[in-house]
Amino acid sequence: MARDATTPAECYFYYPHLACVVGVRDEARDSANFAPVTWATPLSSDPPLYGVCISPGAHTHRLLLAAGEFTVNFLAAAERSLVARLGALSGREVDKVRELSLALEPGRAIGAPALAAAYVFAECLLVERHVFGDQTLFVGAVQHVQARPGAFDDHGVLRLEAAAPLLYLGGNRWASAVAAPADGEK
Amino acid sequence: MARDATTPAECYFYYPHLACVVGVRDEARDSANFAPVTWATPLSSDPPLYGVCISPGAHTHRLLLAAGEFTVNFLAAAERSLVARLGALSGREVDKVRELSLALEPGRAIGAPALAAAYVFAECLLVERHVFGDQTLFVGAVQHVQARPGAFDDHGVLRLEAAAPLLYLGGNRWASAVAAPADGEK
Repeated sequence: MARDATTPAECYFYYPHLACVVGVRDEARDSANFAPVTWATPLSSDPPLYGVCISPGAHTHRLLLAAGEFTVNFLAAAERSLVARLGALSGREVDKVRELSLALEPGRAIGAPALAAAYVFAECLLVERHVFGDQTLFVGAVQHVQARPGAFDDHGVLRLEAAAPLLYLGGNRWASAVAAPADGEK
Repeated sequence: MARDATTPAECYFYYPHLACVVGVRDEARDSANFAPVTWATPLSSDPPLYGVCISPGAHTHRLLLAAGEFTVNFLAAAERSLVARLGALSGREVDKVRELSLALEPGRAIGAPALAAAYVFAECLLVERHVFGDQTLFVGAVQHVQARPGAFDDHGVLRLEAAAPLLYLGGNRWASAVAAPADGEK
């Protein structure tokens, strides 16, 4: 089959990706900061580790190094404008919590808060960091997970009809997920 | 809001995730191996780096160390049964290319082949690896991307109407992506 050949920089081949919002304490302001991060992945089951990529120039990068803990928050597609606003504002310039009147949910295992709007969030202790190219991979040991009741089924699988997650497509494009058509396969 | 508190092991909080199939050469068989990998993420823009997590016990882990290069292949939701079959078979026991009569696409920059069924694939040179918990993160320097014509728009964003991607939800559940409803926001 003929194919379009492109350079990596010209093609978001790796999207859609679940939008993730990283929450960290901002001690200097006695507040917190929340920033969308789309390059993120589980790294290990046992122990449970989750990694997020953050640019060294980002305000969140500095806060995360200082705080040593963070929440990862996942939001429904209906919260797209909130995620876009969190990305458009700089935590260096404004306190996003006050600016956007964000409702917070306290962590149980760590001091970083989560977004009340999240259908699920995980609390992570920073255990390692590695520089890869123009990003730092922060590795968090997942301490605790809090989910909105009914968002996940008894097997821990997201119920798309209860929480249609926000996915990022690249540029200013967003998506959500729908169950794949049944094909008789288990 | 009351929330369900769960341990990380009980909740696939990080799904859906784009299903990714890693392709590597299998020199001993003069063939190749393809394995679904759902824990994967871009790691850097410049240079373009892409990371995939693979269990040290997996056949692909050994092949990837030997070959030093790999393709990452992304498939449409319609190819769910192919991805499920690739995951159910062990490359240690069978040659999946012959067993499933896989049509291959040659890499241009590396020797590892790709799946002809993929709507896009990227060719990667293995440049680093790191052990995180029970997985190894293989870091690939993306050399080249080949996409099915029309799968991406002029901005390099996936056209969901042309290629509805396969997403993994956890357990035996799969999903696809749909454009998020417009809300007037850019």
